[in-house]
Amino acid sequence: MGSEYRYRQLEAWLIEGIQKKRWGKGDRLPSIRSLCETKALSKATVLHAYQRLEASGLIEARPKSGYFVCGSRIERPLPESRPPISAPLPVSVSDVVMDVMARGAAFDLLPERHQREENSHAVQLLNRHIGRALRSQRGAAHQYYDGPAGHIELRALIAQRYRRLSCELTTEDLCITAGCQQALFLALMATCQIGDTVAVESPGFYGVFQLLEQLGLKALEIPSSAVDGLQTQVLAEALTRWKIKACVVTPAFATPCGATLTHSAREELIHLANTYDFAVIEDDIYGDLGFFVRPEPLKALDTEDRVILCSSLSKNLSRDIRIGWIAAARWHDKVKHLKLVTMLASSRFVQQGVVSFFKDGAYDAHLRKQREVLRYNCDQLVNYLNEQWPSDIKLSVPEGGLALWLQLPDHLNTLAHYNEALREGMVITPGALFSAADNYHHCIRLSFAHPITQAREAALFRLGEIFFMK
Amino acid sequence: MGSEYRYRQLEAWLIEGIQKKRWGKGDRLPSIRSLCETKALSKATVLHAYQRLEASGLIEARPKSGYFVCGSRIERPLPESRPPISAPLPVSVSDVVMDVMARGAAFDLLPERHQREENSHAVQLLNRHIGRALRSQRGAAHQYYDGPAGHIELRALIAQRYRRLSCELTTEDLCITAGCQQALFLALMATCQIGDTVAVESPGFYGVFQLLEQLGLKALEIPSSAVDGLQTQVLAEALTRWKIKACVVTPAFATPCGATLTHSAREELIHLANTYDFAVIEDDIYGDLGFFVRPEPLKALDTEDRVILCSSLSKNLSRDIRIGWIAAARWHDKVKHLKLVTMLASSRFVQQGVVSFFKDGAYDAHLRKQREVLRYNCDQLVNYLNEQWPSDIKLSVPEGGLALWLQLPDHLNTLAHYNEALREGMVITPGALFSAADNYHHCIRLSFAHPITQAREAALFRLGEIFFMK
Repeated sequence: MGSEYRYRQLEAWLIEGIQKKRWGKGDRLPSIRSLCETKALSKATVLHAYQRLEASGLIEARPKSGYFVCGSRIERPLPESRPPISAPLPVSVSDVVMDVMARGAAFDLLPERHQREENSHAVQLLNRHIGRALRSQRGAAHQYYDGPAGHIELRALIAQRYRRLSCELTTEDLCITAGCQQALFLALMATCQIGDTVAVESPGFYGVFQLLEQLGLKALEIPSSAVDGLQTQVLAEALTRWKIKACVVTPAFATPCGATLTHSAREELIHLANTYDFAVIEDDIYGDLGFFVRPEPLKALDTEDRVILCSSLSKNLSRDIRIGWIAAARWHDKVKHLKLVTMLASSRFVQQGVVSFFKDGAYDAHLRKQREVLRYNCDQLVNYLNEQWPSDIKLSVPEGGLALWLQLPDHLNTLAHYNEALREGMVITPGALFSAADNYHHCIRLSFAHPITQAREAALFRLGEIFFMK
Repeated sequence: MGSEYRYRQLEAWLIEGIQKKRWGKGDRLPSIRSLCETKALSKATVLHAYQRLEASGLIEARPKSGYFVCGSRIERPLPESRPPISAPLPVSVSDVVMDVMARGAAFDLLPERHQREENSHAVQLLNRHIGRALRSQRGAAHQYYDGPAGHIELRALIAQRYRRLSCELTTEDLCITAGCQQALFLALMATCQIGDTVAVESPGFYGVFQLLEQLGLKALEIPSSAVDGLQTQVLAEALTRWKIKACVVTPAFATPCGATLTHSAREELIHLANTYDFAVIEDDIYGDLGFFVRPEPLKALDTEDRVILCSSLSKNLSRDIRIGWIAAARWHDKVKHLKLVTMLASSRFVQQGVVSFFKDGAYDAHLRKQREVLRYNCDQLVNYLNEQWPSDIKLSVPEGGLALWLQLPDHLNTLAHYNEALREGMVITPGALFSAADNYHHCIRLSFAHPITQAREAALFRLGEIFFMK
């Protein structure tokens, strides 16, 4: 029997992984969904293998969290998003975001220490490719602006990558930007006008709230679960009451929780966009950072040319090269024009360097390694929090991305501790940044982008003291 | 007598320059104003020297054009700006700008040929400095965003340069941008809201008209003379009728004419801004490209912290590194926030490369050479046009910048010839781009950024045929 053979094969592979410490005690195993995708198995087959291992006592199931290697890890309840839904709000974000960014610290608790960490091999390689692109520039290239859409070869390579993920994109559909934030900015500029309402995840990315504030747009906050992301049924209900122009959504490993939209939620979202005629602005920046699987972008399901795909290399390769992109669907010409008008062009030599880095196969090799590192860092962080922080906190355990989300006891206000932490060299990302309403004052985003060194462990310990010893 | 000695010294220096072919037959000599500044002489002294040389028959005065070495160059009337002034207009700019930019060609008639030209020594040096910055990046720099204001050392060096030009700027007053266009965008975003009116030069930079269009701002076009730029008396009159939020002005070598504001016009403009409470957005991008003199920025006269200084390295060093800056006066915090929100950060390694290039003294050495080259190219272009194009055209002869402005017979429409020229490989910049109203259909901007090679001469010849042989 083919299917019997398959679940036994999977079972053997999982046991081997546990024996070889690929997953240690208390570690979370790949989700059913991700195993279905990576191993091309049916849900029944994966479930069957997991249930057999559970029966054997090697692993345990935890409701809403998945399967875990039996051992020390403590089960935690998930953080909540905050219903009930409220009317669209004008956005006013605190100066803390400016301060966090000015310290270059959105993903590191201890930015002052970063000098000691080495550049990764991939970044050294990237630097060499960019350096070579600079040296081999022919002719008076510095005297000419790059075209508004960006380097044609880079766009071709990016389109090719998306085609492998079932997105029908060509070179002509893409425009290179100075990172994903600029892509989101261009998408909102192209689709909305001052006073319009935009649906966003709650909790959601503070960069989007900042954009809404600066562009004079209103935020309609749709609760987003720590596991499945944007609650499309709530959006559906809200759409009967409010008119929106766009919905900004991160379908894969959304910050701050690391949630990923289910397939049916994706279909529902596309259906709603078609029915209520709004743009879907897809932030795919964490898409390549799945520990177990690279989800297909929402764009793959776009039927009416209304999903605007935004992403960049900032989170998975380099924040310093400022290379992102946008596939703006029916708004492509408008976006290209807006890019021209707001910054003329991108750096050609950097794009050329990225092209040769890609062609070298270096990017995929880097991603494979990076995913392993992040999964390891994530588990380290979760283990630390489980062992050292109070047991009544709630936390998300993502399957990708760079951060997890903690819900602390309700009386705590993490924002109020920002300056205190700062005086001790720690830059935290308080929950208040992730909403236009006052919904997450007792939450905090913690990143595992950097290894949990002794210094960072000490910082986490100190942060625990600040929060819980008062 | 000191002053007698001085005019004789100047006279001897001019004669020597003519004998050594620093200025050839028909070449324009430095303006009185620029000699006053570069040689620290009074106007009377310079005038005296010029009048003696004129009496000797070595040079000749041409009304409104200056002094020229006697010889072949034909005197031309100046192009006109188009009165009367009209009410503020919404802006709608043609797709031609997109096309010009997509061809990377704003300053080259023959962009396809540029592969054959060599990078300048300075650009090779700059490339080496950037490459070195990449290689010597310490720690995991690629994992951190640069601060929103940009690299502190670069800001310090730029502030220092402006202090030498009488501007009271410090490191903290500056924000690094992705070029001057982004600086102008941020300045307009920070000072205006949709529907507001902005005073601009007419003819004026098409990038500004494009920005006004995209931001939903109205243009109040103030006539700008080919020699002295923005006519402040017309602005004064207009301000009694219309409320403006900002005035975008290029006080030095404004595109398309290459005009430079007189000192009294500068004082008048500041006075008007203080009286009518608007922001002055100074585009200083050509300031470093004066053939004879580097004018002080208008910012030097700012008394109420309302002059926003914008510039970049694009026009005088490299269009590809995307490094510009903005000193946004009272709007500094707002601009920094807007930069954060619209693109997060700039590339640190590129800024570090520019810093070491600056510290090496390479930038000033490059500028000295560049100014000579541009002056030579400009004279070549003017000579060519005088010899080969019809005598009834009017043209500006700038003392800096990258382009001159031609007024052709009134029945000609240069925009209508855009596609015809393009089919023969020529990318022209028609007059229609330089106004929101239909004022300059019979004008064209020609650039001398690139050497007048045989190929470009042939292209100019062909362009003359297209315009005048029909």
